[in-house]
Amino acid sequence: MTEPLPAALVRQLRSTVGDDHVITDPNRLLVYESDGLSAYRVRPRAVVLPASTEEVAEVVRVLHAAEIEIVPRGAGTGLSGGALPTPDGVVVGTARMNRVLEIDARDRIARVQPGVVNARLTDATRPHGLYYAPDPSSQSTCTLGGNVAENSGGPHCLKYGVTTRYVTGLTVVLAGGEVVRLGGAGREVADGLDLVGLFVGSEGCFGIATEIEVRLLPLAEGVRTLLGIFDTMEAAGHAVTSIIASGLMPAAVEIVDKATIRAVEASVFAAGYPTDAGAALVIEFDGTEEGLDADADRAEACCLAAGAREVRRARSEEERLGLWKGRKKAFGAMGRIAPDLLVQDATVPRTRLPEVLAKITEIGVRYDLQIANVFHAGDGNLHPNLLFDRADPDQMARVEAASHEIMSLCVDVGGTITGEHGVGVDKRGYMTLVHNEVELDMLRRVRRVFDAEGLFNPGKVIPDEEIDAVAGVGAS
Amino acid sequence: MTEPLPAALVRQLRSTVGDDHVITDPNRLLVYESDGLSAYRVRPRAVVLPASTEEVAEVVRVLHAAEIEIVPRGAGTGLSGGALPTPDGVVVGTARMNRVLEIDARDRIARVQPGVVNARLTDATRPHGLYYAPDPSSQSTCTLGGNVAENSGGPHCLKYGVTTRYVTGLTVVLAGGEVVRLGGAGREVADGLDLVGLFVGSEGCFGIATEIEVRLLPLAEGVRTLLGIFDTMEAAGHAVTSIIASGLMPAAVEIVDKATIRAVEASVFAAGYPTDAGAALVIEFDGTEEGLDADADRAEACCLAAGAREVRRARSEEERLGLWKGRKKAFGAMGRIAPDLLVQDATVPRTRLPEVLAKITEIGVRYDLQIANVFHAGDGNLHPNLLFDRADPDQMARVEAASHEIMSLCVDVGGTITGEHGVGVDKRGYMTLVHNEVELDMLRRVRRVFDAEGLFNPGKVIPDEEIDAVAGVGAS
Repeated sequence: MTEPLPAALVRQLRSTVGDDHVITDPNRLLVYESDGLSAYRVRPRAVVLPASTEEVAEVVRVLHAAEIEIVPRGAGTGLSGGALPTPDGVVVGTARMNRVLEIDARDRIARVQPGVVNARLTDATRPHGLYYAPDPSSQSTCTLGGNVAENSGGPHCLKYGVTTRYVTGLTVVLAGGEVVRLGGAGREVADGLDLVGLFVGSEGCFGIATEIEVRLLPLAEGVRTLLGIFDTMEAAGHAVTSIIASGLMPAAVEIVDKATIRAVEASVFAAGYPTDAGAALVIEFDGTEEGLDADADRAEACCLAAGAREVRRARSEEERLGLWKGRKKAFGAMGRIAPDLLVQDATVPRTRLPEVLAKITEIGVRYDLQIANVFHAGDGNLHPNLLFDRADPDQMARVEAASHEIMSLCVDVGGTITGEHGVGVDKRGYMTLVHNEVELDMLRRVRRVFDAEGLFNPGKVIPDEEIDAVAGVGAS
Repeated sequence: MTEPLPAALVRQLRSTVGDDHVITDPNRLLVYESDGLSAYRVRPRAVVLPASTEEVAEVVRVLHAAEIEIVPRGAGTGLSGGALPTPDGVVVGTARMNRVLEIDARDRIARVQPGVVNARLTDATRPHGLYYAPDPSSQSTCTLGGNVAENSGGPHCLKYGVTTRYVTGLTVVLAGGEVVRLGGAGREVADGLDLVGLFVGSEGCFGIATEIEVRLLPLAEGVRTLLGIFDTMEAAGHAVTSIIASGLMPAAVEIVDKATIRAVEASVFAAGYPTDAGAALVIEFDGTEEGLDADADRAEACCLAAGAREVRRARSEEERLGLWKGRKKAFGAMGRIAPDLLVQDATVPRTRLPEVLAKITEIGVRYDLQIANVFHAGDGNLHPNLLFDRADPDQMARVEAASHEIMSLCVDVGGTITGEHGVGVDKRGYMTLVHNEVELDMLRRVRRVFDAEGLFNPGKVIPDEEIDAVAGVGAS
């Protein structure tokens, strides 16, 4: 159903970025048909890989003139379908723009291209005693450009905050091919209206960021990591509540549930978590050495008071990675249980976690679906993992229905439909749960300020019946 | 020159908010002619003081229907003229909307009306062991609504960040009188596009926030406060650089210069700073008790290594307030030196501070103006205080010219034209220093998304030759 691009247009694109960097061969297009949201696949008409701001601007001008939809793409690790191609669209990938342009160690700022891998930035800044804080679970592969588009979070965002807190400046190519510079010079917010903050999280609907300036933090002097083993999820939940209530400020508080522990321990990633445990809690503190042991002691006491069966403490970096392993490898391990995985993402007031988790279990039973929970307990950011087989349309339908119930449940207790994975196509149908028509209309009009024709990543974020009908994905 | 409002319209407004809450008497209007930016005064046609979201919505509907400009106003402590009336406009004040609506101690969220005084919120949450972090110097009088409009900062924003980091939800009355709810439920950013972050800092140009949801922080377990006395500003600057470079994370690092020390010590606020000192540095650490003394010791060592003549350390809360006094009372004390004061606000990369301060001194000499510096050194947020007499038009002209040079200087070294005071009318003329036409056009169009006719606070933030010509203020 996907129309090939006119030959003249392909020639124009090739002359801009080089022959090898315009992909039209169906076999090579295959890998671009979806991102981390494996449930949906759409073949793009072509993939273009520019190498500079100038090339991006020229590619956008050419596609804009031809009125062809543009789907920006980083590493394609996104979990809400933000980089899902459109049938009539061309994917513009940032893979070749992977240079760290500048590290200003004294002012703690880095300037990077959007294709720089999240973890590579910290590798580059570590010699200066600095690091980039937001740490998505995919940080060894996901790129800064994608992180900006989705406003990505990670385990340590409990203490350090998500991407938007660290992005201080952007060079952006707009729909017409104009290049604008927003923010800059390490300031937390732009003067006047915060266009940088507006762009972060816009999921490729506003333009393509071709240069990103971020704040860096000094490497923590010390770290303490605990693993609490609990018989029940309820007990683990109580431990989280009392740790936060005690005034402690952990860098991370992560929960791994029974189903996930079993999946991990049955996999090649076995982390030594007891398979009969009801839940495991990974707690980490960092900062200046003084006081870290005291903080860890207080957190351990909270766990034991809540009924922890056992609390382990890492004595070395190797042991620390061991305690984290069960959490970090969870998604990979689930591949053993089912061919497909829908990682849901929602936020609820921390205090409502126990009740919400119980209801999610009930929903799983009712729809006869396996749901495994791995999540950022400290900030109430849930990640129910719905396991299924895409080949089974009936399962697909149940996954969709169960997802919708889970989202409604989170919104009903005062939460929202995404914590850190963005809206993309997967959540677009849920936007009406949290936004009224006036707000949705405002979102549409804000979007048009950046892209009057709506050629940038159509069908993402903002509900659109037309597009849903055409693409046949998203809103239910 | 100010036209009185039609009697019928006044009646309509009175029937909405009550007779006493529509002010048209010129004597009572006097206090609304300016905000903290005393250099400009404009008499509004009237001041309306609604008491609820519904009353604000009705007032806005009435004024919008009559095509009358609306200037939102909090406590009027703003320093960039964001609440300066327009000759044809009506001021809508939030003074009567001063209730703390809800404190959710477990989820650490507070819901307040816009007229709640910043410091009162912390008074209300302290019993729960919580506080509201952003602390403008005016916190005992400024309101949360004004803080949201200007995205206000304060001394402790070095560690804790400015207002936008704490606002999680807003109820906003738009130009047509529609009421929209943005964000909410304590989430750091709105799902999809961050309309909350966009509204924070919009200086009353987008609408009026009638309910504000903010994140609270647990009260710090302990605090350590140091006062470093230096012979020269250069030495104090070096101390700041080495403290930050050492990886320490102070809650505040404030510099008070020679001129300010002398003004304070000559005033009723005398704080016991040596009057022959070249600069004083207030350094504060907070957090869990463990480690605080070690942090303070390291900071003291940095000061002494940089040539501090003396480093004092507070041993009690009373002593702590004493060390802060010279900083907190600086603005008040300057009233002794000159009748008028223009507090400038700009941010530069921390490492460029010494060079920028030297050039500011040179500018003061060249324009024969007294300039006193009190500022947030830790994050490179400068506050040159230009002292003058409004009655002297020649001085006014020199203040304007000197301000423009200072702004250009900060931008030239990679800084920006505002750190925490907003753009208002005072900085509007400088927006072209940091934004090109494409960006300014984007700002104008984003503004129109919220307020198509531009009736909300016209002439603020975004450069506008027409308005400048009429109002005769701002852009030079």
